[in-house]
Amino acid sequence: MKIVIVGATGTIGKRVTEFLSEGHEVITVGKTSGQFQVDIADPKSIRALFEKIGKFDALVSTTGDVAFVPLKDLTNDHWEVGIRNKFLGQVNLVQIGKEYINEGGSFTLTSGILSQTFIAAGTSATSINRAVEGFAQAAAAEIGRGIRINVVSPDLLEDSKAAFGSFFPGHYGVIGCRVAQAYMKSVLGIETGRIYKALNNDYVS
Amino acid sequence: MKIVIVGATGTIGKRVTEFLSEGHEVITVGKTSGQFQVDIADPKSIRALFEKIGKFDALVSTTGDVAFVPLKDLTNDHWEVGIRNKFLGQVNLVQIGKEYINEGGSFTLTSGILSQTFIAAGTSATSINRAVEGFAQAAAAEIGRGIRINVVSPDLLEDSKAAFGSFFPGHYGVIGCRVAQAYMKSVLGIETGRIYKALNNDYVS
Repeated sequence: MKIVIVGATGTIGKRVTEFLSEGHEVITVGKTSGQFQVDIADPKSIRALFEKIGKFDALVSTTGDVAFVPLKDLTNDHWEVGIRNKFLGQVNLVQIGKEYINEGGSFTLTSGILSQTFIAAGTSATSINRAVEGFAQAAAAEIGRGIRINVVSPDLLEDSKAAFGSFFPGHYGVIGCRVAQAYMKSVLGIETGRIYKALNNDYVS
Repeated sequence: MKIVIVGATGTIGKRVTEFLSEGHEVITVGKTSGQFQVDIADPKSIRALFEKIGKFDALVSTTGDVAFVPLKDLTNDHWEVGIRNKFLGQVNLVQIGKEYINEGGSFTLTSGILSQTFIAAGTSATSINRAVEGFAQAAAAEIGRGIRINVVSPDLLEDSKAAFGSFFPGHYGVIGCRVAQAYMKSVLGIETGRIYKALNNDYVS
């Protein structure tokens, strides 16, 4: 299987790349790193990427920026970050990518724990994550050609606790290989329209 | 209680206005009708509205445009309709409105049945509805001053079946007074961060 991983050099992307590289041709894509580069906020950049890569069987997106700003300071410019990048960026990976993906292929997008739990400065992330999940589920029903679309919603990663743990008081981290398994289930399984939650906190469901 | 209803002359807004007018001061707002006018896609128009209305105790939004276009034809311009109007429009009613709402007041936004069920040409609506719900739940946790934020997710209305029923094959409608009760529960109740689903189809949950 030829698998494109967008965000391949990120904390999650590295693990997913490592796991999926066994037995598959993995194409790594990053904003400034990897075999190919893309700015997912720019549809032209996404089309140029697929023109270079050609046909593929699966795409995994483990990328997407969103602004972390307290509600009282959240401006429309902050909203634009998540809308252009994590939301429409992933939407366009599917909408443009569907012209290049083989029949029966799959797209796996990424939302995140803030779909399920709320933190200070997390309102934009929650909204955008929910939109990504809604898009994937509705588009999975509409897309046709046996193409599957799922979302992985990873909890805070153990590897990210040093950087982001203070935003998540009282929150456990999940280990990277567990999160990577959720992407394996999406790419190598048969389900579509699913949200795979890779959670490690029993008070979040 | 002084209650602002944005979308007051729409199918749902009319019912909510009728119910809440008993015992409360209701201010009706529409795009071109009602006591005051607003274009929710324009933050300046929203601020001008609140400057005219002054302090209030509750705001109900029963408005918000979104594009209904099949996934294969859905362009970024179509996405912009729902993003600017139903999503950021309602977000800005809260974010700007919170400067004018009294302590302990409430905001009630509207998502819709397409959060829960998927139809042809409904992918944008599903995504936008989910974003509205995520915003309301996360913002309810962040907003402070005892202000509550809920969402009503109405099923297809009986009154709208003639116009929209063909988009919803096999789908029952819900009667308007049942939907209006969900808004009553949000405005006159004590809960926050809730999604009140006013559904009438046992295969949608």
